[in-house]
Amino acid sequence: MQPHHDGSASYVPQQEPTLGETVDVFVRVPAGADVQQVHVRTTGDGEPRFREASVDRVDGREVWWRAEVEARNPVSNYRFLLSGRRGPRWLTAAGLVDHDVPDQCDFKLVSHAPPPSWARDAVIYQVFPDRFARSPAAEARQLPDWAIPCDWDTPVIGCGPETPRQLYGGDLDGIAERLDHLDRLGVNTLYLTPIFPARSNHRYDAASFDRVDPLLGGDAALARLADAVRARGWRLLGDITSNHTGDAHDWFTAASSQVHGPERGLYYFDEITGDYESWNGVTSLPKLNWGSAELRRRFATDEDAVLRRLLRPPYGLDGWRVDVANMTGRRGADAYTHEVAALLRAVVARDRPDGLLMAEHGHDHTGDLDRDGWHGTMNYVGFTDPVWSWLRHGDQPVPNFLGTPGGVPRRDADAVLATMDAYRSLVSWRSYVHSWQLLGSHDSARIRTVVGDAARQEVAAGLLATMPGIPMIFAGDELGLTGTNGESSRTPMPWHRPQTWDGGTFAAYRALIALRRGEPALRHGGLRRLHHDRDTLVFLREAPTGAVLVLARRAPGGPVRLAGLPAAENVYGGAPALRPGPDGSVTLPGDGPTFQVWRLC
Amino acid sequence: MQPHHDGSASYVPQQEPTLGETVDVFVRVPAGADVQQVHVRTTGDGEPRFREASVDRVDGREVWWRAEVEARNPVSNYRFLLSGRRGPRWLTAAGLVDHDVPDQCDFKLVSHAPPPSWARDAVIYQVFPDRFARSPAAEARQLPDWAIPCDWDTPVIGCGPETPRQLYGGDLDGIAERLDHLDRLGVNTLYLTPIFPARSNHRYDAASFDRVDPLLGGDAALARLADAVRARGWRLLGDITSNHTGDAHDWFTAASSQVHGPERGLYYFDEITGDYESWNGVTSLPKLNWGSAELRRRFATDEDAVLRRLLRPPYGLDGWRVDVANMTGRRGADAYTHEVAALLRAVVARDRPDGLLMAEHGHDHTGDLDRDGWHGTMNYVGFTDPVWSWLRHGDQPVPNFLGTPGGVPRRDADAVLATMDAYRSLVSWRSYVHSWQLLGSHDSARIRTVVGDAARQEVAAGLLATMPGIPMIFAGDELGLTGTNGESSRTPMPWHRPQTWDGGTFAAYRALIALRRGEPALRHGGLRRLHHDRDTLVFLREAPTGAVLVLARRAPGGPVRLAGLPAAENVYGGAPALRPGPDGSVTLPGDGPTFQVWRLC
Repeated sequence: MQPHHDGSASYVPQQEPTLGETVDVFVRVPAGADVQQVHVRTTGDGEPRFREASVDRVDGREVWWRAEVEARNPVSNYRFLLSGRRGPRWLTAAGLVDHDVPDQCDFKLVSHAPPPSWARDAVIYQVFPDRFARSPAAEARQLPDWAIPCDWDTPVIGCGPETPRQLYGGDLDGIAERLDHLDRLGVNTLYLTPIFPARSNHRYDAASFDRVDPLLGGDAALARLADAVRARGWRLLGDITSNHTGDAHDWFTAASSQVHGPERGLYYFDEITGDYESWNGVTSLPKLNWGSAELRRRFATDEDAVLRRLLRPPYGLDGWRVDVANMTGRRGADAYTHEVAALLRAVVARDRPDGLLMAEHGHDHTGDLDRDGWHGTMNYVGFTDPVWSWLRHGDQPVPNFLGTPGGVPRRDADAVLATMDAYRSLVSWRSYVHSWQLLGSHDSARIRTVVGDAARQEVAAGLLATMPGIPMIFAGDELGLTGTNGESSRTPMPWHRPQTWDGGTFAAYRALIALRRGEPALRHGGLRRLHHDRDTLVFLREAPTGAVLVLARRAPGGPVRLAGLPAAENVYGGAPALRPGPDGSVTLPGDGPTFQVWRLC
Repeated sequence: MQPHHDGSASYVPQQEPTLGETVDVFVRVPAGADVQQVHVRTTGDGEPRFREASVDRVDGREVWWRAEVEARNPVSNYRFLLSGRRGPRWLTAAGLVDHDVPDQCDFKLVSHAPPPSWARDAVIYQVFPDRFARSPAAEARQLPDWAIPCDWDTPVIGCGPETPRQLYGGDLDGIAERLDHLDRLGVNTLYLTPIFPARSNHRYDAASFDRVDPLLGGDAALARLADAVRARGWRLLGDITSNHTGDAHDWFTAASSQVHGPERGLYYFDEITGDYESWNGVTSLPKLNWGSAELRRRFATDEDAVLRRLLRPPYGLDGWRVDVANMTGRRGADAYTHEVAALLRAVVARDRPDGLLMAEHGHDHTGDLDRDGWHGTMNYVGFTDPVWSWLRHGDQPVPNFLGTPGGVPRRDADAVLATMDAYRSLVSWRSYVHSWQLLGSHDSARIRTVVGDAARQEVAAGLLATMPGIPMIFAGDELGLTGTNGESSRTPMPWHRPQTWDGGTFAAYRALIALRRGEPALRHGGLRRLHHDRDTLVFLREAPTGAVLVLARRAPGGPVRLAGLPAAENVYGGAPALRPGPDGSVTLPGDGPTFQVWRLC
């Protein structure tokens, strides 16, 4: 065990510091770690300063040092200088180093308003409305010209011109009818991909922000679904496209036809050629220009702007996932992203102080967090990608990760942890634990396809349920559904074919979610690694209220002996309780693949 | 040898891309490096995109791959995906990695206006005017009340209340009289610490920006010195305090006395207590408030603002070093730093399109570069600190590095390179090579005191002269002067005691500067590491015009054999020429400490 600090409550009791407040921070130093003196280094107002830490208490074989850090700036960096006989070392969020390193991995104390308190306890279930469930009313609906009507059993075309046009007819009342399924699974937050009228089944090409798509049941159906969700004590999140609209959007049709109209400036038109900027060159998705005050008004600040209207009754969404947040406001020399994020957050807070604002980001999100904008991100790069590459199946190619050429490579635990740590250490603990962790989504292959079998999917789901971050489950993963890319993963839920459900996988998800929801340490605790080898990860989640020990193995291996742990009862996975042996160490079993959790006594 | 790319001209022929321009970038892959396919990944407008690279040419046993990168944004990131039999690897500015990593170390293509072309060829000599040389006129000057008059031989008090008050009376005409010394040394740029009236010998507490301190000879003396410098074809840089003024500054005296006057808002007053914000709590240095439009006008944008006036005749400074740039514009929630940097740069360019703007920064500068503000920084953290810790003398404590508690630790080459690489890889090649590298300054111990002897000082000076970055020499280092902290290092130049000069050190500096100024690869070339062990660094500087091989040793060691190099003539240090042996490798000698440079044939 090494000297340790993270941003959780054991180390930073004041979790919501205000600007200018001085708070205590603690470092835990095990005996034998060669630490004689501890300083904390801050860089308030851009200048390094050192303060000596003092011993707060000695707890068994551990010394807890205490130092003071001022939340001098909205984000205040700090790190520890540990001096010992063998020389000085720095402790940053990237761990211990024996040489000087830049500040980007310093611990971060954030004094911006915190995310809503419910978010840390959320377990999110993602629904792609066209493919989840169809209410009886769906049958009678007139389909639009662009749609290729599909029966619930029609195979999904994962790639081709028909891909966005296959319309299965799922609707909001259909979702409302299936909430018992979510209840059995144990989630408590429903996240819907877009629900505005569009010219595709995914609806990321909004034709209007003024109403819910009538194909989904319209505004009234959203109100009914929101009521049903709220009645269960759950939360409901929407999905909003801030980077672009569809080319059928009334703003865009006006902008195209009226060169001098007020909508022209909402987009990026080349006034000579008449061309316009669009998402990745897809002309049906014209890009919004956030330099436009008119756009800010229409999209965000107006009383009836889409961002605000749906947060209020009769809908009462509890927040938004922001689509393509990574590109929003970025184009050439335009760099409005952070400004837009802060604006949207402030506006959301106006109608819903407890509203959540999450950014889609498919690569490095770290520069966009901790800025009084997005509360968190979809942590594909710091969770999904490393978990995939650790657990991917055998020797056959595995679908690419979000467009990276070549299949998902197979990597050992050290590489996987290096990636997780690299992303984690660049953001505050707050942004880390409020980001969504996911094993896949409507934009990726399904986890079952990546890992190949139920046993490894259970390991993946175990990590999802026990690591810091808000778990998000793409509907159908819990039934063992498959899919090789985002589009082919948008599988209609096989309600009518329960014999195809993977009951074991459902049971595992259900038990893991219950474990997370029942164990405060899994939602609010810190993270300490105890051991890893190629095929094995062992870590502790610790909170003042208790601690759990997690073992994840992708393959069988040797037993792992750990010193310094108390006895522990198994609470997931079925392994025996842990009892320290004569030498004081406990032994974790060597079977695998397996996922086991013990609660420390 | 590993696959390699850096931002130098061999790899990025277009060194000054404009926004929107697509440029070629090259990766050099040695045979046997397990690379079958190369992609470049960009993140224009916030979205990752991959493009396949193609083989441009095969050069001996090396394959040069070519790919295209659009300078889509003012700073455009890119990295390479190298696919081979043993799996994919990323090549970023931090080197090769076999797992996924965040973007902060991506290569960076910068399309902001480039720094002035003369800067890369500069060798800078830093003068602290009170301590450099006294003209005859100095004797007759009336000294101010705060001053403790000192004879040129009075010992400098390094720490105490008298420290800022010891006035030795060096002046600008004194400097002009000693330019032959600079000429013999071979430098071509003179940088003066502040020259405005003040109440200290360091003059960082400006009492006015309207005139040059009469104690230094006043405005006319600056004009004379500028003429003399220009006559030699050299450049002259000033030092400006953007973070604070002195409390005797006319702005501050007005601000203190007139609560409703126009100066009040230039500073941070607490209108209840009457207290004001100051630099690190030193009340004689009241902090400037860059939220004030009036400050921006007075300091920067006015025709006669200090920033502009001295850039024009009869002074014609070639640019500024900006004092405490790291804190400028930062205070609590105020974060004007990047805005101020961009403003100052734009304003400097208005009067002097070839003006240079360098930021003082004593810790992690990386977040403040590549932003259309500072052209570069004083690279204490990425050069001075690692060089000190590698070359520090024996077992006695060595003065601390810029306030870090504990003496400078002794570190081996791997730790030193890790620190250098960590800072280098976070900024563009452009910002890296335009930053000043230094072995010390008026704010630190002197290199001779840190390393303890002439032999290791030569190694340090060798690195200063041969690594990327603009060398800056603090006056007196070339004579072997000593000093244990910034204040005690402000030693009067011992002109009248030539017997105390370390002639060998002067000769080494002179030869190394000549080498740098004569060898384009040292000023414009890339950087490839060939070897390191605890006590040894070996690297290549390579340009299309030629290449040099550098060997730095802090202690004797075994000979180093390197394969794949041509014959090479020794051009510094006196070691034999290198001739490939029967197996094709060359052998570098094992003596040490030593510093050797060979030009490849």
